[in-house]
Amino acid sequence: MRTAAALIIGNEVLTGKVEEANVAVLARFLFELGITLRRVVVVPDELEVIATDLNALRASHDFVFTSGGVGPTHDDITVDAVAHAFGRAVVRSAEVERMVREYHAEKGRPLTDAALRLAHVVEGARLLRNAEVWWPTLALENVYVLPGVPEIFRLKLAVLREELAGGEGFVSRAVYTWSDESSIAELLTDLTKSHPAVLIGSYLKWRGEDYHTKITFDGSDREAVERAAQAFVDALDPKDLVRVE
Amino acid sequence: MRTAAALIIGNEVLTGKVEEANVAVLARFLFELGITLRRVVVVPDELEVIATDLNALRASHDFVFTSGGVGPTHDDITVDAVAHAFGRAVVRSAEVERMVREYHAEKGRPLTDAALRLAHVVEGARLLRNAEVWWPTLALENVYVLPGVPEIFRLKLAVLREELAGGEGFVSRAVYTWSDESSIAELLTDLTKSHPAVLIGSYLKWRGEDYHTKITFDGSDREAVERAAQAFVDALDPKDLVRVE
Repeated sequence: MRTAAALIIGNEVLTGKVEEANVAVLARFLFELGITLRRVVVVPDELEVIATDLNALRASHDFVFTSGGVGPTHDDITVDAVAHAFGRAVVRSAEVERMVREYHAEKGRPLTDAALRLAHVVEGARLLRNAEVWWPTLALENVYVLPGVPEIFRLKLAVLREELAGGEGFVSRAVYTWSDESSIAELLTDLTKSHPAVLIGSYLKWRGEDYHTKITFDGSDREAVERAAQAFVDALDPKDLVRVE
Repeated sequence: MRTAAALIIGNEVLTGKVEEANVAVLARFLFELGITLRRVVVVPDELEVIATDLNALRASHDFVFTSGGVGPTHDDITVDAVAHAFGRAVVRSAEVERMVREYHAEKGRPLTDAALRLAHVVEGARLLRNAEVWWPTLALENVYVLPGVPEIFRLKLAVLREELAGGEGFVSRAVYTWSDESSIAELLTDLTKSHPAVLIGSYLKWRGEDYHTKITFDGSDREAVERAAQAFVDALDPKDLVRVE
């Protein structure tokens, strides 16, 4: 099993100014790759907190993804915190500096010290890119540093797909039913025992007009997942079955 | 300063099946009450993991809110995990059992063992309710156990408002500008120094058509927040100001 954790950095999430959107995107991305997201931690823009959490997460997971804090302003301290966590220096990447300079020249914008902070990287970091995303993504050992802005987060995740591929992806089936959770709880408990390779989840819909409960079946063995979902469908009163996805 | 943490329990969040929605609601609720949300942790439906994280969070924060895992099925283990964390027994609440029995009788549903699990509480827990929300919310010392279903999560938060009130709420101002982050970074750094009671954040909008950067000013002192926001507006080229909220 390959495991992952996410470290979400940002006061804006902890004060409710934004609806955090990157965790769900990352979770689905990893699920497809067969990597188990075990843990997400959201922390404020504080260097020591970020570094301490990053060290705990990278020691106990195969991959760690950070989100947020990579811009040019005073509250963007992720690169400094990653460097601190690894006990390394922050250096200016000549290559990224050239990109920042060209970008500002092209846009006719004055080149500020703050803009040059965008060229800061951790010493020894790898800079990942692909044909679509020329702006590099910083990676250091098993840590990937991603931006908080959702549109850029998605673009940069795509850059990592090749590096993270290689395992069997997870598959999922969902059965929607009119049954309420209490009436099928015993059946589900039995199914978790008879289908140990499949992770079964049960989620009720509040005042559901199109179904009452959604049962999910996850695993890396497609046939085992199908069998578990079918066993549930077979045990259900046909009038309670809404649909299978 | 009163601090809080959230423990989000659910495989469905870690596999990307749902967009987690309770953190933003909790964050805004606490912000209004002047309670600082310092940390959010998302964990899978695993008893030992939940208990270990809960113990770490409740030891280091004034309040802890859990979300998820309180239904009747095999993957609903939050009450058991909270009991385990506190080293207490799970007991059946006579009062909640009566409510479950009445509900099932009223709906004409068979009363299953699983349904009676809904009456499980941790020994010594307080059961909180108000006139609108008759189904009780379990609280134990500084831990509040809330359901994952967003509609019920919101209803139950409202029950806690009175218990958590008493401090000065936080206030926030936002200034939207056409300036890009690099060009105002130095100004923002200066403002963080000259307005130490105000937390200043800077957030860029990707391909923003209505503004480029949003600057936020947070604090418990309304006048200090207003002064910091005004100082930023005054320093801005008037053509770059979009609006103040």
